[in-house]
Amino acid sequence: MIEHLNVPTRGKGLHEITVQLQDIVTASGRAAGLCTVMIQHTSASLTIQENADPTARRDLEAWIERHVPECDPHYTHTSEGPDDMPSHIRSALTATTLSVPFERGVLALGTWQGIYLWEHRSRGSVRRCVVHLGS
Amino acid sequence: MIEHLNVPTRGKGLHEITVQLQDIVTASGRAAGLCTVMIQHTSASLTIQENADPTARRDLEAWIERHVPECDPHYTHTSEGPDDMPSHIRSALTATTLSVPFERGVLALGTWQGIYLWEHRSRGSVRRCVVHLGS
Amino acid sequence: MIEHLNVPTRGKGLHEITVQLQDIVTASGRAAGLCTVMIQHTSASLTIQENADPTARRDLEAWIERHVPECDPHYTHTSEGPDDMPSHIRSALTATTLSVPFERGVLALGTWQGIYLWEHRSRGSVRRCVVHLGS
Repeated sequence: MIEHLNVPTRGKGLHEITVQLQDIVTASGRAAGLCTVMIQHTSASLTIQENADPTARRDLEAWIERHVPECDPHYTHTSEGPDDMPSHIRSALTATTLSVPFERGVLALGTWQGIYLWEHRSRGSVRRCVVHLGS
Repeated sequence: MIEHLNVPTRGKGLHEITVQLQDIVTASGRAAGLCTVMIQHTSASLTIQENADPTARRDLEAWIERHVPECDPHYTHTSEGPDDMPSHIRSALTATTLSVPFERGVLALGTWQGIYLWEHRSRGSVRRCVVHLGS
Repeated sequence: MIEHLNVPTRGKGLHEITVQLQDIVTASGRAAGLCTVMIQHTSASLTIQENADPTARRDLEAWIERHVPECDPHYTHTSEGPDDMPSHIRSALTATTLSVPFERGVLALGTWQGIYLWEHRSRGSVRRCVVHLGS
């Protein structure tokens, strides 16, 4: 069973999609299985991160901003703007696909885990994800 | 089919869980399928790494210790200790979920591959994983 | 359903395997499901990256060459050559397994996405992958 999920983003940052994925699991009526989400872009990615203190997500973004910076003079792929090449590198260092088991109709996340779409471009857009539910 | 696996850790480092995962596959009686493991934490993660020479794993840990250090003055999320924020970043850079096919009842790992739980906190604890077997 | 895919590489770099994976999906005759690929090595890895402008892939490789360099004096695992230890670290930072849904017999990749085997060793070899198709 495959569903499509569109996620509007408003620029760089971690956008939580746990509720949207849980809704797909719930609507399926399935009790147990595996939920796999893939993002159909190479300038945004996926991550499972702490959903409690927002300072953890801000520090995570600040770390990657320092280590995979814009305007690195080594970049040659610059025609799509200064935020494009770092977004591909950030995407390679994080996840494009994630698989999360579910039990009793609920995604088996830890207490402090949320599933996030990580937008790496400065300008927001609508990001497309594909969600597969397996038994 | 879903199982739960608890892994006690004794502090930072790579703890091999290949045997525990193989035991779950064996106990299922299934010949072929896909074994997906997810760690229910954001300060520990998963990786498939060389299982032969322990210096490879030590160098891997030393690299991440240098590049995602404790006590980086940029961190603001410091209330849970100096090892907490780097553990979230290390988790984002490695894997939270891994899917490994199995054939003839055996995980289809390469000769030198082992599956590891990577503890990023200084103090060990019991880490919870969820294991899904699909056909 | 499990297939084996051998990929000859001619040294460091991103080798596209999208066509080979699509061929496995097509040959299966299945309309929809999940295609999981795992690489059976710890000195090569997998990534989904931009398939259009090759400068993006070259900049990605150059970034990792700078940040996970050969000949780092901190390495102790050096017996297999200067490109061995960085290849393990690069493998840990990217993906060993990827799961891509397919619909109507076609991998559900975005317009600009290709699936790549990333060879991290200087000398090419034949890299083995295991491909699982689930429903």
